[in-house]
Amino acid sequence: MDPHIRVRPEVRRVADDIGTMEIRGAAKIADAAASALRTQAVESEAETPETFRAELRAAARALHDTRPTAVSLPNALRYVLHGMEGATVEDLRSNTVAAADRFCDRLERSQTDLGAVGANRLKDGDRIMTHCHSTAVLACVEAAVEQGKELTAIVKETRPRNQGHITAERLHELGVPVTLIVDSAARRYLNDVDHVMVGADSIAADGSVINKIGTSGLAVNARDRGTPVVVAAQTFKLHPGTLTGQSVDIEMRDESEIISPEEKAAIGDPTVVNPAFDVTPPRYIDAIVTERGQFPPESIVMLMRELFGEQTTEPWLESGQ
Amino acid sequence: MDPHIRVRPEVRRVADDIGTMEIRGAAKIADAAASALRTQAVESEAETPETFRAELRAAARALHDTRPTAVSLPNALRYVLHGMEGATVEDLRSNTVAAADRFCDRLERSQTDLGAVGANRLKDGDRIMTHCHSTAVLACVEAAVEQGKELTAIVKETRPRNQGHITAERLHELGVPVTLIVDSAARRYLNDVDHVMVGADSIAADGSVINKIGTSGLAVNARDRGTPVVVAAQTFKLHPGTLTGQSVDIEMRDESEIISPEEKAAIGDPTVVNPAFDVTPPRYIDAIVTERGQFPPESIVMLMRELFGEQTTEPWLESGQ
Amino acid sequence: MDPHIRVRPEVRRVADDIGTMEIRGAAKIADAAASALRTQAVESEAETPETFRAELRAAARALHDTRPTAVSLPNALRYVLHGMEGATVEDLRSNTVAAADRFCDRLERSQTDLGAVGANRLKDGDRIMTHCHSTAVLACVEAAVEQGKELTAIVKETRPRNQGHITAERLHELGVPVTLIVDSAARRYLNDVDHVMVGADSIAADGSVINKIGTSGLAVNARDRGTPVVVAAQTFKLHPGTLTGQSVDIEMRDESEIISPEEKAAIGDPTVVNPAFDVTPPRYIDAIVTERGQFPPESIVMLMRELFGEQTTEPWLESGQ
Amino acid sequence: MDPHIRVRPEVRRVADDIGTMEIRGAAKIADAAASALRTQAVESEAETPETFRAELRAAARALHDTRPTAVSLPNALRYVLHGMEGATVEDLRSNTVAAADRFCDRLERSQTDLGAVGANRLKDGDRIMTHCHSTAVLACVEAAVEQGKELTAIVKETRPRNQGHITAERLHELGVPVTLIVDSAARRYLNDVDHVMVGADSIAADGSVINKIGTSGLAVNARDRGTPVVVAAQTFKLHPGTLTGQSVDIEMRDESEIISPEEKAAIGDPTVVNPAFDVTPPRYIDAIVTERGQFPPESIVMLMRELFGEQTTEPWLESGQ
Amino acid sequence: MDPHIRVRPEVRRVADDIGTMEIRGAAKIADAAASALRTQAVESEAETPETFRAELRAAARALHDTRPTAVSLPNALRYVLHGMEGATVEDLRSNTVAAADRFCDRLERSQTDLGAVGANRLKDGDRIMTHCHSTAVLACVEAAVEQGKELTAIVKETRPRNQGHITAERLHELGVPVTLIVDSAARRYLNDVDHVMVGADSIAADGSVINKIGTSGLAVNARDRGTPVVVAAQTFKLHPGTLTGQSVDIEMRDESEIISPEEKAAIGDPTVVNPAFDVTPPRYIDAIVTERGQFPPESIVMLMRELFGEQTTEPWLESGQ
Amino acid sequence: MDPHIRVRPEVRRVADDIGTMEIRGAAKIADAAASALRTQAVESEAETPETFRAELRAAARALHDTRPTAVSLPNALRYVLHGMEGATVEDLRSNTVAAADRFCDRLERSQTDLGAVGANRLKDGDRIMTHCHSTAVLACVEAAVEQGKELTAIVKETRPRNQGHITAERLHELGVPVTLIVDSAARRYLNDVDHVMVGADSIAADGSVINKIGTSGLAVNARDRGTPVVVAAQTFKLHPGTLTGQSVDIEMRDESEIISPEEKAAIGDPTVVNPAFDVTPPRYIDAIVTERGQFPPESIVMLMRELFGEQTTEPWLESGQ
Repeated sequence: MDPHIRVRPEVRRVADDIGTMEIRGAAKIADAAASALRTQAVESEAETPETFRAELRAAARALHDTRPTAVSLPNALRYVLHGMEGATVEDLRSNTVAAADRFCDRLERSQTDLGAVGANRLKDGDRIMTHCHSTAVLACVEAAVEQGKELTAIVKETRPRNQGHITAERLHELGVPVTLIVDSAARRYLNDVDHVMVGADSIAADGSVINKIGTSGLAVNARDRGTPVVVAAQTFKLHPGTLTGQSVDIEMRDESEIISPEEKAAIGDPTVVNPAFDVTPPRYIDAIVTERGQFPPESIVMLMRELFGEQTTEPWLESGQ
Repeated sequence: MDPHIRVRPEVRRVADDIGTMEIRGAAKIADAAASALRTQAVESEAETPETFRAELRAAARALHDTRPTAVSLPNALRYVLHGMEGATVEDLRSNTVAAADRFCDRLERSQTDLGAVGANRLKDGDRIMTHCHSTAVLACVEAAVEQGKELTAIVKETRPRNQGHITAERLHELGVPVTLIVDSAARRYLNDVDHVMVGADSIAADGSVINKIGTSGLAVNARDRGTPVVVAAQTFKLHPGTLTGQSVDIEMRDESEIISPEEKAAIGDPTVVNPAFDVTPPRYIDAIVTERGQFPPESIVMLMRELFGEQTTEPWLESGQ
Repeated sequence: MDPHIRVRPEVRRVADDIGTMEIRGAAKIADAAASALRTQAVESEAETPETFRAELRAAARALHDTRPTAVSLPNALRYVLHGMEGATVEDLRSNTVAAADRFCDRLERSQTDLGAVGANRLKDGDRIMTHCHSTAVLACVEAAVEQGKELTAIVKETRPRNQGHITAERLHELGVPVTLIVDSAARRYLNDVDHVMVGADSIAADGSVINKIGTSGLAVNARDRGTPVVVAAQTFKLHPGTLTGQSVDIEMRDESEIISPEEKAAIGDPTVVNPAFDVTPPRYIDAIVTERGQFPPESIVMLMRELFGEQTTEPWLESGQ
Repeated sequence: MDPHIRVRPEVRRVADDIGTMEIRGAAKIADAAASALRTQAVESEAETPETFRAELRAAARALHDTRPTAVSLPNALRYVLHGMEGATVEDLRSNTVAAADRFCDRLERSQTDLGAVGANRLKDGDRIMTHCHSTAVLACVEAAVEQGKELTAIVKETRPRNQGHITAERLHELGVPVTLIVDSAARRYLNDVDHVMVGADSIAADGSVINKIGTSGLAVNARDRGTPVVVAAQTFKLHPGTLTGQSVDIEMRDESEIISPEEKAAIGDPTVVNPAFDVTPPRYIDAIVTERGQFPPESIVMLMRELFGEQTTEPWLESGQ
Repeated sequence: MDPHIRVRPEVRRVADDIGTMEIRGAAKIADAAASALRTQAVESEAETPETFRAELRAAARALHDTRPTAVSLPNALRYVLHGMEGATVEDLRSNTVAAADRFCDRLERSQTDLGAVGANRLKDGDRIMTHCHSTAVLACVEAAVEQGKELTAIVKETRPRNQGHITAERLHELGVPVTLIVDSAARRYLNDVDHVMVGADSIAADGSVINKIGTSGLAVNARDRGTPVVVAAQTFKLHPGTLTGQSVDIEMRDESEIISPEEKAAIGDPTVVNPAFDVTPPRYIDAIVTERGQFPPESIVMLMRELFGEQTTEPWLESGQ
Repeated sequence: MDPHIRVRPEVRRVADDIGTMEIRGAAKIADAAASALRTQAVESEAETPETFRAELRAAARALHDTRPTAVSLPNALRYVLHGMEGATVEDLRSNTVAAADRFCDRLERSQTDLGAVGANRLKDGDRIMTHCHSTAVLACVEAAVEQGKELTAIVKETRPRNQGHITAERLHELGVPVTLIVDSAARRYLNDVDHVMVGADSIAADGSVINKIGTSGLAVNARDRGTPVVVAAQTFKLHPGTLTGQSVDIEMRDESEIISPEEKAAIGDPTVVNPAFDVTPPRYIDAIVTERGQFPPESIVMLMRELFGEQTTEPWLESGQ
């Protein structure tokens, strides 16, 4: 590597903190990464545009390699690098700083902005059905409640980890009456609800939504019953790798979440598989609500390109890598 | 009531035993009820056909009123009364006895016969997905295994009571390798299975299948993925009341099956609803396998009429009641 | 024709009355036709079984030819001829009389019996949507109301003749609150109703339902919204000609029902077509409710064969005709 | 085996002729088998009903075992054995003879009767699309043409054996203008045709139609385009083994029908698979036209039971076998 | 408010004229609003960019508040404000003027441009089905006719106000033969038409089309019959509020359009509901034809963002409002 | 035409070579056309921006008119003209040259880039099904194989020209085991494959894919079986004329590809139609893979606008033409 390329120690520190999970949570990681690139841009002593760009890419690479599967991390990096434009070092610097500022600014307001959009889809008296726990969904409900709308909710418990209990509790705190059901009972109540409203773990360029296991089966039934499905997710959930066809890996979690070793042994020691997420194709989703407005899932790829640029390789890689 | 009509004390004893659940289980109840009508026919001292028929109806009514919601009970009664034909007391007696004998005989062999039919649909190497626990499904698998077919199974745990654990254990005993999943993971694995195979709590004249909560959502997803759905159920699960449009009541079970009182209080005391069953429309079911062969669900009404007769009122009622 | 074959003058009189529409209405025609065959059977002086059968066929033919498109007429004739069994004239006579009696008896009770079946599908608090005007549907509602169930109804006006107004009035008389909408507004309200409930003009062996124009479009939307569709129709609406593949002719009515001559001229004299009925395929119908119970539309052919026999030619025709 | 049971030498001769394919073709085999059972019944010297029944079963078994996969053979045997009723040898004999006569009589007229039914579904000016070659479909077209209806046809060539060419030629002989297309072009023309009309190799109790490979893909597309699919098949195509869940084996034919050895070698010697048939689920079929009328596929099981009886084991087997 | 902010009296005059409906019609309102902002930009005496922008926003707000539900009004305002870019007053002024000019220029040509696009989808000999009355649809037909294509049309009368009569008359004037039907007859004729072609009242960011009541039911049936659905609408029908999740209010019109007070009283005084529009989800629409080309409904949100910018709040509001 | 407008002789030479098919193949034509515009830009002696633009348009028109149906030709022209921006001749020149360079550069790398994207969708062990022959599909497979993924393929022979044989051979060369089937056998094997992967002849703005006849029927069946459909196509397949609603003409090829004259005469001389392509609506396609990433088909219109600009008339035409 070119010896003139110097990644700032502050950047390395942030990378370390992300790697050790000192900094954790999708929003916090994204904020730290964008800010680190800003620091690199401000502090860079690069004398040529080429060196400046190479430094920024190197900084991005250092940050990226710490937790390559955290979807908000490459998002932040792509967004800032996508804004790194200009013919001089000064232009590059100021545009990069501006991009990082825009990113962090938006990120800070994103949950509120998303909530305002989602709340607009809810009418007074509506009943929603939820799966798992999503702060984005709660932000929509909260904003609707603040607008004076009365809502009720049917909450799926969401085996194996029962995150529905958290959702039930938060909705209760918002004054929303909750009915709790097992996951299997969802279809029976779908004709009684006005919206299925779920979050997302990540969203792919082909419009697929990766979310807690059980979302896809719920969405298929909702379509069959004529109930619209809304996904609430900030744009840092958009998975830039999928622009180039990459699949989102589905985490397989520990079998002990499903059955204790003793029970398992007692019933003949079956294989137990515990995928954390599944993939809902766009044709079962009516709208994706983000802090930048709502989108049909089929158009989300264009938002991704707008935010992160089109890249058939990862932007922190040198050509030829 | 006509003083000549005498219901035999043996019949009343059986009725009591059914009412006190001394006799329990769908097959045992059906056998006892048909045998009781046989006794009534054999022992009847009726001197006219009218009196004989009235006695049999009275006996049936006495039996029926003990547990009106046990679906196999009216089935047995209808079947035997449907066979009560003839112009003389002796003809009525012998035909009624013959009907009761046919019923009990078939009933005894029914699980084996059903298993043979269901096994024929399974091919060597097939993988099935099951929901809840059904002895009829197990009979199909057992017969297939005895034919030398190697099968594997994906077993849904079936919240809230985890009957999937029993299924897993029984399949293990039959030498069938089992993979256990949470209910929400079903769609993810549907493209990997050759058949969804479930039992039934009862089956309606319009072809709907009432089975453990979650069956309908599974069936909708199976259709969406191109996976056939087979329901295995003996004919005593056919619900004769549905011939005349009656709905099958869905039992609501205790909320403590879903959440403990402490946990419930901790999350804001939501309403909890726990329906035991749901209704799968016939269009999502490929075949119903019974001891009398396999049927598309849309034709099951004709089998019901063949077995139980067409009655717009319940056959144990006097006209005008 | 064999000179020994004598059609009774009473039969000819009934035939004339049907032809001149002195006797009209599907139920009245059916009753008169079955009774006429009964008369023929009672009064016949035939000395051989062949002659008896030929006379009955000739009587049936005479009746049939008066109004070949009234669906209840061939039904009555087929039903009675289907019951004409026996090896001697006396057997033939008594069986024919019995068949005619059974037919008329059932016919008389049929609306009440049908209403009882349909009412069983309705729950307290249900809301139905109707199209056109059907006494069978009203019988179901009336029976349900008599059972103490509270119902509400959304009534489509049913252009061009606004028979929905009659339905609205009758429902009002039954104490059922009515909401009136234009036909085009149906989809908007389908998620708010529990059942779409319509009558039938006739029903075909392939399970198709011929009913007032607009029924099929409503049924397709009901399926899309997850709302069940129930057809209420007495069995004299089953079209026996369709057993052998015949199509049901769709009456084209006068264009003045749609637009006045003046308005038509004013807008450039378009062609106006006014089909009275359309055809709903069985896959959009959940159940057909009759006085003999409820059936999935795909099984109705078996009921037709049971009632009318299987005939690849019309039973009143001599062989070779 | 009981030494009193004597299978007639004429029966054995027919069995041999079927086995050596001296007698071939579905209709001819069925006719020969029913006639052989008739001979057995007429000539039987059995002195007890038990012996008579055992002889008939033995005769049936001898005939059956010659070509167990020819679907019309067990049909004929089941039909005749299903008619073997009575308490005395003479009753058994006369009922068996009558059943055999009815079977053969129907069989002889069946193509004409089927054609009459199918023709009724066709309207003057209709265009049909066909796949493969079916004499039953041609019988429908011929009957329609004789009624003076003008038809046109789009004929799929039906790779790999191009039976569409035969269909094209026969239709041409009937005066029906033909358009020939490759199989892949079917969807493009489906909106231009009024009916898809195909034959069947066999039909299963669950309503599935087994027909020339490509039928199922055509039917799925026809449903997608709103074009009805009609299957024309005589009842000897109904597969009685499927009543008890048996699958219909799909013949795998020689790869040389698809590619010559030289061409195959030239392109890298791929595996070539050449299934002769595929399975179309009932939900894609609008009607099955037979010589006994038309049926929705979901009700065909009831026709099978009516014709052949319900048997969970094969009726030519002794109990316990 | 800042005292330096001066909204021009010409702007206030236009606002008044819109409010009093002196200026009416979607296109005229849009043109007047954009021109008024142009006037404000030209005449502004603002000395700082901040003041200039605040003035323009204030002008926009004044215009907007006159008729907040007219969809073309916020469109015009957003478009012009979206073009208000620059670092100096002069840049802001010239860019704003250019945006207003572009908007008005496009608007003027939009119907012709849209017609040219829509005409390209029509082939010589095509038959279309229409619902209600849409000048955009007529523009497509007119352009096609001018290209020498012969078209025919099936026109739904469109209860309750029979706007289909106007469509019939206009098509007649264009030389297009018309067949008039009641709304309920649409499904029966859908297999005979090549395109369903309708206008739009407004179009939402999630791809839904709000149009005359009955459009959604027609579109669902068209999909079921394999007939493509085309929506023709100028871009001033795109509803910018829906970018942020707002619902489009559905106007409820007077019940007297459906039934006279006398008739209503005579049939028991039912509730009458008369929604003017319904919502067609994007999955039932094949293309939206605009003056800027054709779009799948799922991508229309990107066109909205391109034209009007992304705004989670309304652009005429000050921050914090 | 303005005498100052001089199209360079080098451009005319390229136009001639395209017209005489000296230059052929979609990629070569596109490259030559873009390069010719570059030459025109470099060599232009225009003195005013107007003249420069008019020259470029004239050059584009000359190139375009040689083969108006080759979809890659207008793409290249639109792309370069879309990049022709600036207020001075020099700006126009350099921007045009840059656009041409970008276009050619991307074009050169496009197959590799596309392959990398498509390969990302494939997993180790996946089985694909292909139709016809597509170098884009092969590029995806090749890239996947180079990543060490083991794939297998089911290859449809693709009547009438059997391009599947070429695909089989190329896959064999890549080490991918191939199973060859007739086109009609596709549905039978769809549940066994992980992806249907096909190329495209051209892609329309409404998201439709025009590809070898049989693609649409395959895609409909793939959806029915739950198998995703991927279209691989470089962006020069996007058909810019469809932005303004133009249809893509479907070439009708010679009937001798389907049947020899002798065979045709022998079977009664049917009409033979041989469409080369069909149209797959976007709702049956899961993703379009291009060298610029993957897209849901509904969003491809936005990529077209990004690459080629929005033009309601063709950009090489003068206004008013």
